[in-house]
Amino acid sequence: MPIVRSPQNPIITPQDVNASKAGWEVIGVFNAGVAQHRDEVILLLRVAERPINDNPDVYYTPVYDAQTNRLGVRTIERGPNVDFSDVRVIRTPDKNYLTSISHFRVARSRDGILFEIDDKPAVLPSSVYESYGIEDPRITLIEGTFYITYSAISEYGICTALLSTKDFVSFRREGNVFHPDNKDVVIFPRRIGGKYYALHRPSCSHYGKPEMWIAESDDLRLWGNHRHLIGVREGEWDGGRIGAGAVPFEIEEGWLEIYHGADADNRYCLGALLLDKDEPWKVVARSALPFMEPEEAFEVEGFFGNVIFPCGVLVENRVVKMYYGASDTSVGYAEIPLDDLVAHLVRGSAEPSPTA
Amino acid sequence: MPIVRSPQNPIITPQDVNASKAGWEVIGVFNAGVAQHRDEVILLLRVAERPINDNPDVYYTPVYDAQTNRLGVRTIERGPNVDFSDVRVIRTPDKNYLTSISHFRVARSRDGILFEIDDKPAVLPSSVYESYGIEDPRITLIEGTFYITYSAISEYGICTALLSTKDFVSFRREGNVFHPDNKDVVIFPRRIGGKYYALHRPSCSHYGKPEMWIAESDDLRLWGNHRHLIGVREGEWDGGRIGAGAVPFEIEEGWLEIYHGADADNRYCLGALLLDKDEPWKVVARSALPFMEPEEAFEVEGFFGNVIFPCGVLVENRVVKMYYGASDTSVGYAEIPLDDLVAHLVRGSAEPSPTA
Repeated sequence: MPIVRSPQNPIITPQDVNASKAGWEVIGVFNAGVAQHRDEVILLLRVAERPINDNPDVYYTPVYDAQTNRLGVRTIERGPNVDFSDVRVIRTPDKNYLTSISHFRVARSRDGILFEIDDKPAVLPSSVYESYGIEDPRITLIEGTFYITYSAISEYGICTALLSTKDFVSFRREGNVFHPDNKDVVIFPRRIGGKYYALHRPSCSHYGKPEMWIAESDDLRLWGNHRHLIGVREGEWDGGRIGAGAVPFEIEEGWLEIYHGADADNRYCLGALLLDKDEPWKVVARSALPFMEPEEAFEVEGFFGNVIFPCGVLVENRVVKMYYGASDTSVGYAEIPLDDLVAHLVRGSAEPSPTA
Repeated sequence: MPIVRSPQNPIITPQDVNASKAGWEVIGVFNAGVAQHRDEVILLLRVAERPINDNPDVYYTPVYDAQTNRLGVRTIERGPNVDFSDVRVIRTPDKNYLTSISHFRVARSRDGILFEIDDKPAVLPSSVYESYGIEDPRITLIEGTFYITYSAISEYGICTALLSTKDFVSFRREGNVFHPDNKDVVIFPRRIGGKYYALHRPSCSHYGKPEMWIAESDDLRLWGNHRHLIGVREGEWDGGRIGAGAVPFEIEEGWLEIYHGADADNRYCLGALLLDKDEPWKVVARSALPFMEPEEAFEVEGFFGNVIFPCGVLVENRVVKMYYGASDTSVGYAEIPLDDLVAHLVRGSAEPSPTA
């Protein structure tokens, strides 16, 4: 597929963002929510940071404390009973911690490539459900309000919470809309047959796999009628885990959803879904093969390499303008001709949904 | 505490229930929903059954097939790569299966002890989300309609679905109200400050533990504003997992909830919670020690021993009349003086909820 990556890629890197606290460093800016607001492109960046550490005997894990409303540091002695094998997680016999903590920062651009990044966080962790940070915002514009779903991480699990804003200056917190574990929630941009819909990705502890579901709502805050949408395909590029990527957008043929699929080696590629326009729980077509894979150096190498991860797109003149996190480190930009994406889907294997 | 167990215990056993299919056997009747309907006590029994198997080389696992709408049998060769260590689950390299499949059966009684049990199932598995069965119904009467939450088990995970009925003859399916994994959902019997509330128990795959949460709703079908209610207490009787037991009921002091707590050895005991009458997400008091433990032979031994598990109670003349599953095998009955239960709670350790 004729995907055009920006020659300026990665368009935003950790060097472009200052830390929120003295003595801390930004290690990643990625997985940004995307919106068009007036004449600007807005990115709501996920900024991952951690305390600078010169002591090789300990690890400083950043934790938000809801009681004092402060970002703090927990010190973990390095030792044989602490597992650092995943760069993102510290596993102690007691609990798991994250090696960094994320907040959201606003970036603005006129041309969609060169961004001015705020000095200060727009949204910081602020409750017991966010003690390990807030991650992966997705923005849906509905009747003049931007609704932002995001992962709220804590020792209580991974919830999806909701924010709303009209201006990306003041944000209103709408609480946990999905109970743990659930992430990769994207809200459709209008009511369909009188209901709002969202794609979501529960993680199960028993039988189920990390797969995509669809739910409905009357008010964007209370959700139900949960139905399984698509599953992983064992041994294939999306055989390990799948989840919504970008917020779905409407085309003549239905709803187009760009999703991420990881294989057993945690390599994240992108596929697409075409969902029925009136009954979005019905899958019309699904990519047989990914339409985009990590290829460029910044997509292959980084804090957690081999990941491309979009949270939102803008669609203009039949071009899908995609902002994507790369290797949990930086932001990339690519343009995809919509007609090629649709042709790719039509060639792809259609699969009926179980509830169809 | 002066708990009076029925001398007729267990009041219902597998021998009292015929299988739903020829060639099958009932191995458990337990974890029943409870309701008062006209002049009868209704139990909605969980009936677990399986194909009779005389072949020691294979295991027949019962599975509901939504496409053909039939209870069928999958044959699993016994071998070194199949794990039967949990009597409830068969673990193959591919998938996990259950050793039995459950449906719901209605039982009726005038005196609350001697029950007439229907010959035929009242509710059978009926969707792809129920291929491994339906379990643990809880019944809440709201404005003349009985709402029944239950666990829907399948390879998609453990959802909580909703049924409604006015007469326990015809039932209406209201879909999955909580996405996987979630069980032990009990709905409060009236609106509180304009909202419905439910206790629920998500299971997390990453950081969180199997603990009790509270959610709110406008219509009983769409749920949100998920908040953590109480956690496990490491090393104690409720240190392994906790979940709502009976449907909460209103007393002068607030909402009384009987919950189950299992320790690291999967021994299930009962504790109680007192929740604020107007703000039920606030914990006023919690049992320090269980008020009831598995003691009788039928509570200690059975298909899965050392389990007492109530799904509902009736409260009359300040007596809590509790029906409880025993050892995943039979139904027990006990009467608990309400004043003693409240006194037990007042002596118990109060703990604030994290969001209070």
